Amino acid sequence: MSSTPIVFGVAGGTASGKTTVARQILDRVGARHIAYLPHDAYYRDLSHLPMEQRAQQNVDHPDALESDLLARHIRELRQGRPVPLPVYDFATYTRLPETVTVEPASVILVDGILIFAEPELRGLMDIKVFVDTDADIRLIRRIQRDTRERGRTLSSVVFQYLDTVRPMDLEFVQPSRRYADIIIPGGGQNRVAIEMVVSRLQAILPA
Amino acid sequence: MSSTPIVFGVAGGTASGKTTVARQILDRVGARHIAYLPHDAYYRDLSHLPMEQRAQQNVDHPDALESDLLARHIRELRQGRPVPLPVYDFATYTRLPETVTVEPASVILVDGILIFAEPELRGLMDIKVFVDTDADIRLIRRIQRDTRERGRTLSSVVFQYLDTVRPMDLEFVQPSRRYADIIIPGGGQNRVAIEMVVSRLQAILPA
Repeated sequence: MSSTPIVFGVAGGTASGKTTVARQILDRVGARHIAYLPHDAYYRDLSHLPMEQRAQQNVDHPDALESDLLARHIRELRQGRPVPLPVYDFATYTRLPETVTVEPASVILVDGILIFAEPELRGLMDIKVFVDTDADIRLIRRIQRDTRERGRTLSSVVFQYLDTVRPMDLEFVQPSRRYADIIIPGGGQNRVAIEMVVSRLQAILPA
Repeated sequence: MSSTPIVFGVAGGTASGKTTVARQILDRVGARHIAYLPHDAYYRDLSHLPMEQRAQQNVDHPDALESDLLARHIRELRQGRPVPLPVYDFATYTRLPETVTVEPASVILVDGILIFAEPELRGLMDIKVFVDTDADIRLIRRIQRDTRERGRTLSSVVFQYLDTVRPMDLEFVQPSRRYADIIIPGGGQNRVAIEMVVSRLQAILPA
């Protein structure tokens, strides 16, 4: 890894398919070429709050995330230094004491719903991709995922969706698409777009 | 040119920057690798109409273009045969007797506002890119271009815009973005997106 790494951001609304896109990039380009920093890992530790208050925090608002730490980690990686990725425990809303060391690589891949909404983060990115999936399709996916995989009730998913997910999506996430260089409709199922992204990244990898 | 050519479509509203994108692809990928078929060349010959009626035709409606001929040409090129590109005279709304021979190439590049609105055309395309520029910016560009380069008055440009350009854009062009694999905001000035498209095309060229 001789030249400056490229910072590649993937944003998009909840359940838009952005993590699928990120995972396909990791698979196709090769995880060894990629330093992966999911914004989700940077949720703020809420251990100073009583448990019932932690669950009531608006996790879809930019303030819920420690974006300045993520920005610092991107800068460190760009300068060739490894960084300690936080490990978050979503059950207790706390950061675990351990971290995962992320080594510098040719591509720094960042994903999250709010990474283009933060001026400091988006200013660090060389390529900004927004995964654009219709809100109704995203809601269906979110209901399926949260009821099946996370054992939640339909009414609790819908309550949270209307209470915070949707308002924050309209206020922060959707307007941030303005900053995207490329918009990928449909997300991870969009093979033509994935091929294009993969070709671009492969073209900048050291031979 | 051994394998089947790839058909690459660039659509977008009037003055969205799609021709700039197409031109940059030609420059960067190399015109010798590209068979370029602009949809504009396929406007129907109106010589059977009196001149005053020709100017009143709605040139923004899909029926104004001979899309089935363009589709046939794409198929011919895919099979490795050269095609005769029509030459249109926009002053008289007629097709000139001469044609330009387009030789088969690894990439068949098609552009036009309506190429994704026609099911037959979009069904032939391997990669569909929609250039997305805000309507107000496109209107500014169109006014500048038509008054400066084509000697038209502001009021005639605005009349045509409200009379046909805008209604057809809303009815045919904008809905056709649904079919795009990639959306490029801002068009020809978007260097990050152009790099991505160019990398993809270079990756499929014969070595």
